[in-house]
Amino acid sequence: MMQFTPALADAAGITERALDVLLPKPRNGETRLFEAMRYAVMGGGKRLRPFLVLNSARLFGVSENCAARVAAAVECVHCYSLAHDDLPCMDDDDLRRGKPSTHRQFDEATAVLAGDALLSLAFEILSNHGTHEDPNIRCELVRCLAVASGPLGMAGGQMLDLESENQTLTVGAITRLQQLKTGALIAFSCEAGAILGKASPQQRQALHGYAHDLGLAFQITDDLLDIEGNPEILGKSAGKDLTAGKSTLVALLGLDRARVQAKFLSDQAVKHLDLFDEKADLLRAAARFAIDRRA
Amino acid sequence: MMQFTPALADAAGITERALDVLLPKPRNGETRLFEAMRYAVMGGGKRLRPFLVLNSARLFGVSENCAARVAAAVECVHCYSLAHDDLPCMDDDDLRRGKPSTHRQFDEATAVLAGDALLSLAFEILSNHGTHEDPNIRCELVRCLAVASGPLGMAGGQMLDLESENQTLTVGAITRLQQLKTGALIAFSCEAGAILGKASPQQRQALHGYAHDLGLAFQITDDLLDIEGNPEILGKSAGKDLTAGKSTLVALLGLDRARVQAKFLSDQAVKHLDLFDEKADLLRAAARFAIDRRA
Repeated sequence: MMQFTPALADAAGITERALDVLLPKPRNGETRLFEAMRYAVMGGGKRLRPFLVLNSARLFGVSENCAARVAAAVECVHCYSLAHDDLPCMDDDDLRRGKPSTHRQFDEATAVLAGDALLSLAFEILSNHGTHEDPNIRCELVRCLAVASGPLGMAGGQMLDLESENQTLTVGAITRLQQLKTGALIAFSCEAGAILGKASPQQRQALHGYAHDLGLAFQITDDLLDIEGNPEILGKSAGKDLTAGKSTLVALLGLDRARVQAKFLSDQAVKHLDLFDEKADLLRAAARFAIDRRA
Repeated sequence: MMQFTPALADAAGITERALDVLLPKPRNGETRLFEAMRYAVMGGGKRLRPFLVLNSARLFGVSENCAARVAAAVECVHCYSLAHDDLPCMDDDDLRRGKPSTHRQFDEATAVLAGDALLSLAFEILSNHGTHEDPNIRCELVRCLAVASGPLGMAGGQMLDLESENQTLTVGAITRLQQLKTGALIAFSCEAGAILGKASPQQRQALHGYAHDLGLAFQITDDLLDIEGNPEILGKSAGKDLTAGKSTLVALLGLDRARVQAKFLSDQAVKHLDLFDEKADLLRAAARFAIDRRA
């Protein structure tokens, strides 16, 4: 745990420097969309997904420059989804990371377009020669990110989430919803390092398993923080899921069993990394951070 | 002109058969998003962009199966942009192709997500091995479509369009807006054939020039139809731009000079094709159709 927080900040710094170069610069006469894109992306956040990209890539000795571009692309996709999810017609959130959400800072149309533009930009980054010299690797990155963000990934999960309001879901249905909504992009973040590093199928599978359990542990902890968390530390309103009538594993299992389940998943995530040496220690620390954090 | 209308219908048929295979199938319990994606895409339309992909690809003897996948991807992007542009926070259109627009048929959240999912799907299609065996070509298709749809393409153009409401733009500013908003994707559609067919830089440049002039001619004709057109043939309300206070070349130049300009651009588009033989005749016919159509 000791080394994790600075490592997370380090990954955030690397990613934000890459994003600053890759995001279009506001310029004479055409500034609004570019400003909104930067606002949606540069507003902080843990940068967990970039951390996972950078540290899965390190397992295979991938150049940091390549990994940083992929980390930036993943963060563009994550932040586009936040800008769209916050819209009044979706989750209707005024606050994100303690600041006005993108549509509150600009307007709804600009938030929709900034999200759209960030999604396109992510694929432009991945397909560009600068991300990797091997076009097979670039194509595989594009394909996997497209699947993770599309109808059978993040967008599909958000649809299920909206449809599940005021419904009681089973544990299985909630797990599937969360695997799509947040799990798919987290899994891509870990697999991206394996793709960049031409890992063996066994290594890639291990990272997939790690990401799967990490993602669910992270989500249960999010739900616990939504009930028990301090809004000032969270940077968003607490109790939001309950008010929205959303089914969560915490609501279904109760606080205690949910905590046990998160701990179980975190331990299992670490176990998936057994085939890696100490180079995977930061990923192991991330699995513990997923359940021990306060925001 | 004689052979053009059936050729356009033929291209639409080829593309819709490809789309039917590529769009996710509605299935047990998770149907809403997939239904909305199909609704947004399968609702008709001229399929001009797919026509341009298929016919630019034919110039270079590209297999129809490859070209049809690219045509389907381009149409996913075009239809996502329509679903988002029709939203109340954007152009607020209830009607599209004579039917309720996606957010009217479903709801706003579903229309946002269906658009998002279609954009991801487009890149999944292009990056998939089935689109072309050469990964360099797949990457170049992804990169060019990402640029055409992103902040320096379609999304950027829609932002300028929204910002220009109730403002009087110069001819130069309107031209730039339209090149971004509709021209970039039309240009990609024509260049896609050149990319698939490993055309020479000169051939690719000729198709780019053709697309540039075709796109502007098409847009001026759209603006003319918005004033003079028959809403029943158009399938949407006429006079919409005027009510929205949008600057168009027609408003700036007047009807007669706008018609002359559209004719000039159409002729110039045909001239760009001089280095191609009769295989380009359908593209030549498209340039005449662009200004002669009634809807």
